[in-house]
Amino acid sequence: MDFARYWSTRQERVEQALNTVLPSAETRPRTIHDAMRYSIFAGGKRLRPILCLAAAEVIGGEYENALPLACAVEIVHTYSLIHDDLPCMDNDDFRRGKPTSHKVYGEGMAVLAGDALLTIAFEAAAGARATERYNHAAMILELARASGSQGMVAGQVADIEGEGKKISVEDLQYIHLNKTAALITASIRLGGMAANAEPAQLDALTTFGRSLGLAFQVIDDILDITQTTEQLGKSAGKDVAAQKATYPALLGLDRAREIADELTTASRSALQPFGEKGKPLEMIADYLLDRKN
Amino acid sequence: MDFARYWSTRQERVEQALNTVLPSAETRPRTIHDAMRYSIFAGGKRLRPILCLAAAEVIGGEYENALPLACAVEIVHTYSLIHDDLPCMDNDDFRRGKPTSHKVYGEGMAVLAGDALLTIAFEAAAGARATERYNHAAMILELARASGSQGMVAGQVADIEGEGKKISVEDLQYIHLNKTAALITASIRLGGMAANAEPAQLDALTTFGRSLGLAFQVIDDILDITQTTEQLGKSAGKDVAAQKATYPALLGLDRAREIADELTTASRSALQPFGEKGKPLEMIADYLLDRKN
Repeated sequence: MDFARYWSTRQERVEQALNTVLPSAETRPRTIHDAMRYSIFAGGKRLRPILCLAAAEVIGGEYENALPLACAVEIVHTYSLIHDDLPCMDNDDFRRGKPTSHKVYGEGMAVLAGDALLTIAFEAAAGARATERYNHAAMILELARASGSQGMVAGQVADIEGEGKKISVEDLQYIHLNKTAALITASIRLGGMAANAEPAQLDALTTFGRSLGLAFQVIDDILDITQTTEQLGKSAGKDVAAQKATYPALLGLDRAREIADELTTASRSALQPFGEKGKPLEMIADYLLDRKN
Repeated sequence: MDFARYWSTRQERVEQALNTVLPSAETRPRTIHDAMRYSIFAGGKRLRPILCLAAAEVIGGEYENALPLACAVEIVHTYSLIHDDLPCMDNDDFRRGKPTSHKVYGEGMAVLAGDALLTIAFEAAAGARATERYNHAAMILELARASGSQGMVAGQVADIEGEGKKISVEDLQYIHLNKTAALITASIRLGGMAANAEPAQLDALTTFGRSLGLAFQVIDDILDITQTTEQLGKSAGKDVAAQKATYPALLGLDRAREIADELTTASRSALQPFGEKGKPLEMIADYLLDRKN
């Protein structure tokens, strides 16, 4: 299977679907729809939605019914970036090589753009067809729990509260599990739910997602140290400047790299029950370990 | 029917239900759950959830299945207040007589508390039982559309963009319809959906909700001018200070009062098809016109 082609065809479908889900930039009030589209189409990798589609393919052979959920997770991810970049949070001026939302639209509008995106994410998710094992309520619950105060938001809170403090490896894992792994795991599980996964299959996807999500964040921390702002498309060295605890900061770069490798291996072995059919998710895991930005 | 008793019994059920929906203040991370509870239990009137329950009663005779949706609309309303009060938005220090969320928890945490509340609102809504005519997707869509960039958020955007500008009565109606009436109408419609309302019944509830929602906002504008900060429990005279367009500012206090009366009459006549059964909603409309804060 040609991975670049696999990725680009699915990425294109996600772009199309996002374009349909979001109101046009001419819809009144124009400023908010312009702001929503600015951040959604700022050149993201579409990792979460493609994981969602890939999980559906692994379970059911096709991904059409996962598309609304794929859009939903990408929209949740984008809202979290807008709010994370605000002056009262991480205070970032650049994201994916472009000025952040509040730099372009002002702080008030950036707060509202994030709010509107989070809201429309649930509208998007409600567009998936319920399956035999999973009704709309189950899908909405999955998305909400992964994104909320005991999921992604919990990670952001712990992250903010940990700044400038000495925290343990366990605390750091809590931050990573919530801030990053929760939504990545939900992306994968939602793909499985859209394809009517059996409970044991959903468990395997969950184990895969948690390991992959943690690996993803550890690699992010490593890249923040080893790459330049240009290579990343966002401010490099921010973690060190903000005295944020990271795996490299707590354990050193070599040990952090080892952990990333171990997690990737763990995620790959979670795919064993799927045999050859697990290939799409396996390729994505390999790709994430080798990425440079 | 004793209105005070009608209101207090339902208000109590809403408080209980909200207490169950929200994670305890001891749930990790404690700060965020404490902040979420601080704003939810800051002494709101519970107008929207009680309208939701009353609509269910008018249609189906009882309100149990509307409780999760009643919680959802109150949680959406509360998140919008937290974000509205932020320094980059309305910059309000007091709300319901208490310091606003960002004054107590800081701006970053207030943004996150609002985000977490908006997210858990959808979790709450998914807790209602689907009815014959309305599945979970229909309920989630109703909530999302009323709250999002073509509903409540649209009103906040237009409100911000209109500050200090000369705007028309039509523009002002657009703001009020979206900022306030959209969520009030959805609260009432969701109650109807939870009770499996017939399409014609849902139409009548919609007409009622829009008139009532507009009336509510016109009265809010009037009170901002005529009441003191103490009577309101929030900063009075803010609209004048911010040069916000309001009905009294555009048309004078007397004409604004007339419009409020006309809208209340319109909402009452929308209830005619329900006959005696429409009584709970009629009482609430009367109560809203006479309120002092």
